[in-house]
Amino acid sequence: MESKSNFKPEEEEPEAIVWAQKAWALLSSVRAKSPLIQCITNYVSMDLMANTLLSAGASPAMLHSIEELPDFTPQVHALCINVGTLSADWLPAMKVAAELAHNSGKPWVLDPVAAGASGFRLKACLELVELKPTVIRGNASEIIALANASVGPTKGADSSHESTDAMESAKSLAQSSGALVAVSGAVDIVTDGKRVVGARNGVAMLTKITATGCSVTALIAAFVAVDQSHVLEATASALSIFGIASEVGMKLANGPASLRMHLIDSLYRLDEVCVLSHVKIGSLS
Amino acid sequence: MESKSNFKPEEEEPEAIVWAQKAWALLSSVRAKSPLIQCITNYVSMDLMANTLLSAGASPAMLHSIEELPDFTPQVHALCINVGTLSADWLPAMKVAAELAHNSGKPWVLDPVAAGASGFRLKACLELVELKPTVIRGNASEIIALANASVGPTKGADSSHESTDAMESAKSLAQSSGALVAVSGAVDIVTDGKRVVGARNGVAMLTKITATGCSVTALIAAFVAVDQSHVLEATASALSIFGIASEVGMKLANGPASLRMHLIDSLYRLDEVCVLSHVKIGSLS
Amino acid sequence: MESKSNFKPEEEEPEAIVWAQKAWALLSSVRAKSPLIQCITNYVSMDLMANTLLSAGASPAMLHSIEELPDFTPQVHALCINVGTLSADWLPAMKVAAELAHNSGKPWVLDPVAAGASGFRLKACLELVELKPTVIRGNASEIIALANASVGPTKGADSSHESTDAMESAKSLAQSSGALVAVSGAVDIVTDGKRVVGARNGVAMLTKITATGCSVTALIAAFVAVDQSHVLEATASALSIFGIASEVGMKLANGPASLRMHLIDSLYRLDEVCVLSHVKIGSLS
Repeated sequence: MESKSNFKPEEEEPEAIVWAQKAWALLSSVRAKSPLIQCITNYVSMDLMANTLLSAGASPAMLHSIEELPDFTPQVHALCINVGTLSADWLPAMKVAAELAHNSGKPWVLDPVAAGASGFRLKACLELVELKPTVIRGNASEIIALANASVGPTKGADSSHESTDAMESAKSLAQSSGALVAVSGAVDIVTDGKRVVGARNGVAMLTKITATGCSVTALIAAFVAVDQSHVLEATASALSIFGIASEVGMKLANGPASLRMHLIDSLYRLDEVCVLSHVKIGSLS
Repeated sequence: MESKSNFKPEEEEPEAIVWAQKAWALLSSVRAKSPLIQCITNYVSMDLMANTLLSAGASPAMLHSIEELPDFTPQVHALCINVGTLSADWLPAMKVAAELAHNSGKPWVLDPVAAGASGFRLKACLELVELKPTVIRGNASEIIALANASVGPTKGADSSHESTDAMESAKSLAQSSGALVAVSGAVDIVTDGKRVVGARNGVAMLTKITATGCSVTALIAAFVAVDQSHVLEATASALSIFGIASEVGMKLANGPASLRMHLIDSLYRLDEVCVLSHVKIGSLS
Repeated sequence: MESKSNFKPEEEEPEAIVWAQKAWALLSSVRAKSPLIQCITNYVSMDLMANTLLSAGASPAMLHSIEELPDFTPQVHALCINVGTLSADWLPAMKVAAELAHNSGKPWVLDPVAAGASGFRLKACLELVELKPTVIRGNASEIIALANASVGPTKGADSSHESTDAMESAKSLAQSSGALVAVSGAVDIVTDGKRVVGARNGVAMLTKITATGCSVTALIAAFVAVDQSHVLEATASALSIFGIASEVGMKLANGPASLRMHLIDSLYRLDEVCVLSHVKIGSLS
């Protein structure tokens, strides 16, 4: 992780180089500062999410009990709320944690898993959106459901849409909510309602591993934690870094389970040369 | 996964060949249709179960909240209910989901984990059996406990009996419940109360990996989802396919954790040649 | 696992040799007896904890429902209680299970995860300590928080202290509680309040894998289950054996995720030669 860069910037791509340097600087900052990231997340994702944060250099805290939030949440560097295995008894703590984070000036990130799968879930997600998340990260179907406030035909946590289908929904949701909105897909899209940036890292097989979307949302929280004043840059960088780790891991993988392992190993080992040569972030608007 | 078969049917084993072709056809159908499988399952198994379904080509949805079931369950292609980490607050949703699935004409599969471990658990399992599961899949101790409606000495989720010890219990349970009953073990036994079929795929080390039994139950749900009119064939095929993936994975494994990884990778990669040459299913009655 | 030892004891280290032989004898006993270990643990750790127990030869049972405890807990060989993802609705079952274990003469082990992270959590941990755990295993920050009964600045489940910083706190907690106290760290410290023993096995990268601390606590429960009359020896041995598995695994690992896999594989495969040549346990007082 300490190797010096021999990366040769290509003069015709100044924007790409700036993005690559930002992404590397942010990953380095996460490793140096080890931000404490509270995760209130679904049961399926807890293991991979915690290991993703640890491998990136952050410190995860899976803590969801409403009694503990007033003591704990103000101490964390960022909060990640994921509604994957939502139930009525977890929702109040999600809301209290979001409010505590917001009132403490701490960034918080919402993952509206399967937002359109039921009326109960959609309502819960829309209530959370009103609590001022810093970032909302979903797949295309989830962002469209939130932007339209509508329940739709569902594939569960999987998307029925391409990320680019959700471009206008993402802009609209960003404008109405004040959150940065990220849409995962073959191209990850990030927008604050005006600027639109695309990140093109990642491999298709990620969709065959459960909780990779959840885990990149937590990684966004860690990146935003170390640079709260540049939320769009931090979000795009986290998406790109996770994607690069999957690209490096894919070279060694024989299927989804070995990709999962190599992804985490690669995230832990990414060095400057690799990051600078792989980042694919650029403006889409 | 698209390679052509060079499998040479042996003339003396027509039944075996027919079974192998069925198993391959069903796996191909799961991959093609990507059925949405709702899982209400224990905390331990969620990760491996979701990854098993994804690797087989299905789409998992871990969703257990009673408020969401009326919107969601009628949309799924099959439901898997597993009582592993049972608690009183999850049981009502399990029952509602089972009823919704049954009333929607969707197959549902019950995994009565450690059915005999307590009076509370046995009663819950027996109540679920009354809600007309399409398939019940357990180990020998669990099927014996259900058939006898009795709490017994327990090894937790592990079986104290061989699958063949449970043959009569399985038949009896199938007849009384109307469900297809599958008993996992060195030989997996499948019976509708009249026919008895055995599947002899799998490796002993599977018992050293948590949640492999849970995961094969979910795989049964995916196979039944794509061929509801042949439940016995779908169940035997799912057990065989999972077993074959473990056999292929075992060649690369150095212990339970690497077997777990290679099992999932192998399930993702199984091709026709491999399936046709490995399936070991045949009549036991 | 059956290879004969060609280990040559070095005459100058009689204490070390005795410890190595104890550790091997205890691991062999776990493999032979396959003790049933009930775990009431956090959601993050369930998978790795169950697989750790299985790989060591024990039989895990993740069962937390208060309705089941009177039937089930008296049948187990040891109980492991871990407060990682504590919530008010799980705490009563933790207490009932601890009482049932104590009243049945079964050892139980407490893992006070992040004990100082909130007032609610600290109070819960202190109440559990009053229910007579056989062993308390935590990191330095957790043991200091318990010994001082104080909430402190937190890094979540990660420690802000070295294990040796907690030496006096550990002795004091052991004396006041009657429990054997183990502090994980670069050197694992084990004390009954008088004797202090150190175990120096393990690798630094374990701190980059979630739930390794939780899992070694469960392994302690398995070791104590097979030799209740030597709790200190069983605890030190479990810590050493888990550390050795990580040392062996580290030779094959490329990062935290592959270390996790090789750790479990190694724990499954450890043989006498490897154990006898790697154990590093010795008196610190």
